[in-house]
Amino acid sequence: MIIAHTIEDVRTRVKQARAEGKRIGFVPTMGYLHDGHLSLVEISKQQSDFQVMSIFVNRIQFNDKKDFESYPREHERDFALAKSAGVHLMFLPEEEEMYCNQHTFVEMESLTEHLCGATRPGHFRGVCTVVSKLFNIVQPDVAVFGRKDIQQAIIIEKMVKDLNFPLRIIIAPTIREEGGLAMSSRNKHLSPSERIRALSIYRGLLAAKSLIESGNRDVRTIIAAAQSNIESSRPEKIDYIELVSYETLAPINIMNQRAILAIAAFFGTTRLIDNMLIEKNGEHYSCVL
Amino acid sequence: MIIAHTIEDVRTRVKQARAEGKRIGFVPTMGYLHDGHLSLVEISKQQSDFQVMSIFVNRIQFNDKKDFESYPREHERDFALAKSAGVHLMFLPEEEEMYCNQHTFVEMESLTEHLCGATRPGHFRGVCTVVSKLFNIVQPDVAVFGRKDIQQAIIIEKMVKDLNFPLRIIIAPTIREEGGLAMSSRNKHLSPSERIRALSIYRGLLAAKSLIESGNRDVRTIIAAAQSNIESSRPEKIDYIELVSYETLAPINIMNQRAILAIAAFFGTTRLIDNMLIEKNGEHYSCVL
Repeated sequence: MIIAHTIEDVRTRVKQARAEGKRIGFVPTMGYLHDGHLSLVEISKQQSDFQVMSIFVNRIQFNDKKDFESYPREHERDFALAKSAGVHLMFLPEEEEMYCNQHTFVEMESLTEHLCGATRPGHFRGVCTVVSKLFNIVQPDVAVFGRKDIQQAIIIEKMVKDLNFPLRIIIAPTIREEGGLAMSSRNKHLSPSERIRALSIYRGLLAAKSLIESGNRDVRTIIAAAQSNIESSRPEKIDYIELVSYETLAPINIMNQRAILAIAAFFGTTRLIDNMLIEKNGEHYSCVL
Repeated sequence: MIIAHTIEDVRTRVKQARAEGKRIGFVPTMGYLHDGHLSLVEISKQQSDFQVMSIFVNRIQFNDKKDFESYPREHERDFALAKSAGVHLMFLPEEEEMYCNQHTFVEMESLTEHLCGATRPGHFRGVCTVVSKLFNIVQPDVAVFGRKDIQQAIIIEKMVKDLNFPLRIIIAPTIREEGGLAMSSRNKHLSPSERIRALSIYRGLLAAKSLIESGNRDVRTIIAAAQSNIESSRPEKIDYIELVSYETLAPINIMNQRAILAIAAFFGTTRLIDNMLIEKNGEHYSCVL
């Protein structure tokens, strides 16, 4: 695995791979890799020949300075994991390599009003800007994002379409720890007891799934089922539990379309997110966690 | 010359040229071509092998609906001119091909407060967005913009740097009609008498050039010289006559750096812009029109 610290080095290596006729796959991350990230590489390998991963903790997408500063970083461990997963080129830039008097930003005018967009002002502007930069640096054929960050994945798909980036986005399934907790680099911050309490998010999603798949169409009832599960484990705060349209990410009142049940809650000082995809097949709904 | 109406067709043709080892040059335009546009193609040919031109009157960069609607369009004539200039691929999309429920925009936070950014709200957001899209569609190695639209050229250079577009921007000299009027598609709207009056913009720049090159460093005196020339020809309105830093596009009070004298004025209902580059060589300044 090659480790590149400069944009120029990435471009040289990618150009070489392309000259060899290889298709380029890309998995952008903020590091502290877990099996969720590695599953993205697996999916990328099915669609491309040369695997690029980036690790960059992107300051401009953090609305909370402490969250940025405490975001876990452990590069040697990440390198070993990425290498074993089959990454060919790791891009690990310093902040100065990525941002030098940055005044251009990519803004998304829809899809950002709800969920994390409402509770983390400026977050998706930072995400869209850094992902645009990374796409222009790596120039991949495919890029893979996890469904755990569903709003991010949908926003990036829309951005790619709107700005005509010449690549394809793949949204990959959420990978869960034993007990159902969605894998996240932030899980590291959970104390053992917080980690146990946090399992209530998964139980809340399962309760909602059970209602929906048994025919319940009342959104308030469905949300209440998730909420009572989560509240029973005394989260420090619930940012949101919302059932939203997959298309617009706006809340819906009745189940009548492809949708998402999305949750953000704090356990201790750690903010966790999770969601469930609600697929519509005629009059039947099936839930994917 | 191939005429492509779809993004897919452009991509196929460009990919083919690239597979033949050709470097791609790009000249984005709004059509109604004149010698200024053709000079951009000439410059592009010196740096690349396959010339792409686009013609697209980009609604979202017009703050004045009437200006958009009356913008001159004459495609057959444009095709003949582009072909004779050596354009290989002409991209002429319908509006629906470019915009379909667009919600992503590229914003520039600096360089837009002054000059046309102050008098045409939203203009550069529209420019940055469409140019980003065109860059992603054409994927050129070099793109050429005219110095007549100096603020646009500087903003696009900054955008390319900030978002890491993998291409090089070339800023090409202004081409002038006999008498010195800067070539512009909008000149078509001038009546014969307005056209004669509009020559005062060039005379104003020449008067300022003469002062600067003879050692005058007082910005107010320099601007006054340009202004009195222009006012003597009774323009319907002067949007601005400003002497700004090349670096920041903010007005400066004393000549102490590379700068631009920029003018926007209406003759009849037609808004014309022009400018002069003021190069600093040690203590000496030289002006380029």
